[in-house]
Amino acid sequence: MAQRYEIRFSGAGGQGLITAGIILAEAAAIIEGKDALQSQSYGPEARGGASKSEVIISDAPIDYPKATIVDACLAMTQEAADKYAKGIKKGGLLLLDADFVKTAPEGDFIIYRLPIMRMAKEDIGREIVANVIALGAVIGMTDVVSKDAGEEAVMRRVPPAFKELNQKAYNLGFEKGKELIN
Amino acid sequence: MAQRYEIRFSGAGGQGLITAGIILAEAAAIIEGKDALQSQSYGPEARGGASKSEVIISDAPIDYPKATIVDACLAMTQEAADKYAKGIKKGGLLLLDADFVKTAPEGDFIIYRLPIMRMAKEDIGREIVANVIALGAVIGMTDVVSKDAGEEAVMRRVPPAFKELNQKAYNLGFEKGKELIN
Repeated sequence: MAQRYEIRFSGAGGQGLITAGIILAEAAAIIEGKDALQSQSYGPEARGGASKSEVIISDAPIDYPKATIVDACLAMTQEAADKYAKGIKKGGLLLLDADFVKTAPEGDFIIYRLPIMRMAKEDIGREIVANVIALGAVIGMTDVVSKDAGEEAVMRRVPPAFKELNQKAYNLGFEKGKELIN
Repeated sequence: MAQRYEIRFSGAGGQGLITAGIILAEAAAIIEGKDALQSQSYGPEARGGASKSEVIISDAPIDYPKATIVDACLAMTQEAADKYAKGIKKGGLLLLDADFVKTAPEGDFIIYRLPIMRMAKEDIGREIVANVIALGAVIGMTDVVSKDAGEEAVMRRVPPAFKELNQKAYNLGFEKGKELIN
């Protein structure tokens, strides 16, 4: 049977979570040669401040059934956690920003916390790279693509002047993600 | 019955067509309050230089069936036209870059041409805004969102220093799109 993996990134609009999804899909498809589908669906909930982005990665062509099951979910804000930390499979993982999500959703999944925004600000010096830290962490925790494929996809997407910053951010996220699950 | 409209943007990687799709979805959903789904699917064809981005806009919740019918399609390059100008409905529209697509695909749809890259370079002075010209043209041709909603969505997505440039690009595309169908 085909291996299929679904990841949801959620947070506030402007945090770059659509970009994180696109980078992950490109890592899987363009670099690793898998099939990938990346999407944003905007229903009535899109009128709040929360935003989400989804990626399905598969080693076979992707059907898009109405009901999908999320293997791993990121929530960067409380509103995003309340709205989008749903449909996560039993034993799946939910990564929360440790400072911005005070009340974790309940469910049959495993909850992990990292102070992603704080790491972006204090360790890297730029909040704008929080999405790349989060992407690195999710890849480190799930191995859904290789560390190198993720890094290469980040490098393809960022302007030359920001490559070093984003590389640091990605590697920091990846390491911290790996630590969480070990 | 619910009104549903599907648009596909295709061209070369790096031309900003994913961004065009995201802006259109945000215009429909966040500004006009409709439902929208924006997606990139990366199959084996993603390993070439062509890229595509799709938007479904509906006044009711969106089911995502496997087979979708495209109402309007943009192709900025010959490779994109060859790969992605498919599944367009009878009487639908296909907008081609007049300089870069020499051989138009055949089908039961109506073909229009605009020199989008050339307009970006010569009329606006920056090739990077070709995607926003194309977006304006598609909105002008289809009325899938209002002119103002499209413009507001462009303004939300571009950095302050590029607002004027993108506003000019959007309006130029919109006008030329309107002229094409009148």
